[in-house]
Amino acid sequence: MISATSEFTSSDLAFMEFALEQAKSAMSNLEVPVGCVFVEDGEVISSGSNRTNETRNATRHAEMEAIDLLLERWQKAGLSLPEVTEKFSKCVLYVTCEPCIMCAAALSILGIKEVFYGCANDKFGGCGSILSLHEGESEQPSGCPRGRFRCRGGLMASEAVGLLRSFYEHGNPNAPKPHRPDPSLSKARATVPRGDAVIAKRPGKKDLQGGIPTPSVPPEEAFVPTSQLDLDTG
Amino acid sequence: MISATSEFTSSDLAFMEFALEQAKSAMSNLEVPVGCVFVEDGEVISSGSNRTNETRNATRHAEMEAIDLLLERWQKAGLSLPEVTEKFSKCVLYVTCEPCIMCAAALSILGIKEVFYGCANDKFGGCGSILSLHEGESEQPSGCPRGRFRCRGGLMASEAVGLLRSFYEHGNPNAPKPHRPDPSLSKARATVPRGDAVIAKRPGKKDLQGGIPTPSVPPEEAFVPTSQLDLDTG
Repeated sequence: MISATSEFTSSDLAFMEFALEQAKSAMSNLEVPVGCVFVEDGEVISSGSNRTNETRNATRHAEMEAIDLLLERWQKAGLSLPEVTEKFSKCVLYVTCEPCIMCAAALSILGIKEVFYGCANDKFGGCGSILSLHEGESEQPSGCPRGRFRCRGGLMASEAVGLLRSFYEHGNPNAPKPHRPDPSLSKARATVPRGDAVIAKRPGKKDLQGGIPTPSVPPEEAFVPTSQLDLDTG
Repeated sequence: MISATSEFTSSDLAFMEFALEQAKSAMSNLEVPVGCVFVEDGEVISSGSNRTNETRNATRHAEMEAIDLLLERWQKAGLSLPEVTEKFSKCVLYVTCEPCIMCAAALSILGIKEVFYGCANDKFGGCGSILSLHEGESEQPSGCPRGRFRCRGGLMASEAVGLLRSFYEHGNPNAPKPHRPDPSLSKARATVPRGDAVIAKRPGKKDLQGGIPTPSVPPEEAFVPTSQLDLDTG
């Protein structure tokens, strides 16, 4: 799934630059920095960035933001559902982090043509890391009404990781104190809230007590930047 | 996953009746009849029905409609993201058809407590039929930031199937003619558009040409009502 930057075209790089700008915009709004753009016929037709904090909605990932923008526009233009699907079938998504399972399933339902992503999401990724929803029915029982789409990762991954690392190194001001582990309390059992992400190598078991899943992070690994980020916002 | 109706409480039945009313409302609007309600502390706090045709958005499943209604309300009330998650952790969803992979992932991200569904969605179901996203990290590598939720199917399944069967027996007026197989043309190769569903035992391979996945249905099996429905709208 991961490819060297040299394997991508200059257009791919330019579009991912645009997606990274969206991620930076998210970061300036104190959101986890993930961004994306949809491209049709070589033109950016929609963009989005993670807005989980602002909307208090943990599902408002960058992809969902950009998708809703597109759909609203196409609905206003009077396109029918098959016409919308036809439009999506020509769209390419550039997103700074691998789409999560929910977003990958949505992209499949909508019939996206192709996805390029930056860094992998090895905790919730739906395009190869945890599940391979982009592979459509090929991995499923025959007849599953999900669309297959092409997918390549590793496009400007270091830039995407750099943004996320920078965000977490400076702390997430929107993270409520009781859920935000204090690195200085390295002996304490660290937990993070849902909708937030931790840069850690191997988060431990989730604590489902109280209904809010709080992945515990082994103290010695909390906030150790790696190239694989634990995200549920991409 | 499937349980006899006698195993459910009278409250469960009452809430699923409400969800079925939403499904009937969808049908009256010429939408695929799938409906749901969210319940908190024994009270219905949100409801939704499939609106894929009206919105020209194949992802506007009943669950997403009801979720967005709830989130909008909680956002207006000024709840923080952790408070929203805390609220979801007390919510029970009753939905007439098994949540699809996208919806099940969204429910997991949001931290839902429990789901009761009617009929299984054996082509796109995310709660046991195709994937088991309700099982959270237990089936995934440790540390996956997805929440586990309880899930039971088979609650008034026959009623849910009956609605869907009735809808398809009368034909879906929103389905564009070229994609809508005419039952009288039983020898022809029948195809259905994305966002639509076919009552058939074993749909064949998908035709991804042209970008609109159109699961082909072996003629002899098209529109043969079964208890397992091929849905991508639940």
